[in-house]
Amino acid sequence: VPTPRTALLLAYPGFTALDLFGPQYFLAALPGLSPRVVAYGRAPVPGDGGAVVIPACTFATAPDECEVLLVPGGSLGVVAAMRDRDTLAFLRTRAAKARIVATVCTGALVLGAAGLLRGRRATSHWLVRDAVLPRLGATPVAARLVEDGADLITSGGVTAGLDLGLALVRRLAGEDYARRVALLAEYRPARAPEMGDPEGALPEDVDALKSMFGPLLAQVCEAADNAAATFGPADAEAAGGARQSPHA
Amino acid sequence: VPTPRTALLLAYPGFTALDLFGPQYFLAALPGLSPRVVAYGRAPVPGDGGAVVIPACTFATAPDECEVLLVPGGSLGVVAAMRDRDTLAFLRTRAAKARIVATVCTGALVLGAAGLLRGRRATSHWLVRDAVLPRLGATPVAARLVEDGADLITSGGVTAGLDLGLALVRRLAGEDYARRVALLAEYRPARAPEMGDPEGALPEDVDALKSMFGPLLAQVCEAADNAAATFGPADAEAAGGARQSPHA
Repeated sequence: VPTPRTALLLAYPGFTALDLFGPQYFLAALPGLSPRVVAYGRAPVPGDGGAVVIPACTFATAPDECEVLLVPGGSLGVVAAMRDRDTLAFLRTRAAKARIVATVCTGALVLGAAGLLRGRRATSHWLVRDAVLPRLGATPVAARLVEDGADLITSGGVTAGLDLGLALVRRLAGEDYARRVALLAEYRPARAPEMGDPEGALPEDVDALKSMFGPLLAQVCEAADNAAATFGPADAEAAGGARQSPHA
Repeated sequence: VPTPRTALLLAYPGFTALDLFGPQYFLAALPGLSPRVVAYGRAPVPGDGGAVVIPACTFATAPDECEVLLVPGGSLGVVAAMRDRDTLAFLRTRAAKARIVATVCTGALVLGAAGLLRGRRATSHWLVRDAVLPRLGATPVAARLVEDGADLITSGGVTAGLDLGLALVRRLAGEDYARRVALLAEYRPARAPEMGDPEGALPEDVDALKSMFGPLLAQVCEAADNAAATFGPADAEAAGGARQSPHA
């Protein structure tokens, strides 16, 4: 008897709502797939910017297997999530039985803190990618989407979650279906081409954001080092390999 | 004494989460502005695709004045919202004192059912725009964003809400600030150019979606006609003008 296919979307205090609900829209368009928000307990979870969500299931009640395990990013909330044993344990058990593990923005750092990016190629928000991913044993890649093998897709900052969602639809339902979902979503953004691209941004804008998020980056680096210190000797090789990356 | 600036984000049963949390991300990046989800009551509001949110305030407790009043779209939920007297009355009172009223996707139909698009130029999801907006006295415009005067911005389907969010940041905080928020959001999508554009889509894709959403369109048209029937004689002129639109 086939069980209903599930996409588990992790919510933790301070998660960025758009990181979760970007992919959620696309996943909800997949026939036979139920996106379900999962959190530590039944209590409402406050995200960034006034968002408060109620989880559909908890770390204890979430199904063991899922099609997609999604980890959204956040700002200060990410530091706490990277240090939370329950969150990391949940990710480890469910990732082992997930068809695809996917992250948006700084969600990659939470997945990485669970030891699940060791030896893998991954991306994250440009503000943290090259500084933090190597500390977690991952090789940073400067790309909006990084598909590493059949079971891992990481994506860049915030809005990259929409491209992730579309990539998941393509992977799970094919190119024709993805094209129709994109049309239903009217996914043909109109922003000016010089905006939003870390590689082509004005240096003063990059500096302003680096300055604004410097304290957060320091906290995230510390949380990453603390997490990596728990990985154990079996993982030294993968972490070492990643440290030799030209990005590191 | 200045009161805190608020963006009121309407949630109603069946709203599309991405329609709300796309703009919410950008609005949350504005200094001194608090995005607040508002709903009929304090009860959790179920959206599309497994999203459940808790409102920060209710129709009764929401501030009278706001910087932005945002109406997200939905599918079947929109039909009910277009018929709900409390929702329409709330929109009328708050729109009168909002600096900018903004809609995403089929949210324009809810605003229109409240009589607030009469005589205005507006857009909506391409599947409903030309068939429904004229019934509500509006002139449909085939554009992703339509800024009509200083107090109204309507946007196209689902993901157009991100462009709306960026437009609101630009309007409220200027071009330089908007460019930095776009960089923080990494808003430089990577989808293939032939995807997601209603004007350039494959005819078979357009037909497939029109067929799938035909029954919903019929319900929305009926709800629009019922709403327009309550607008009263003073509004006949604007509605008549819109009916003569080449799009109607």
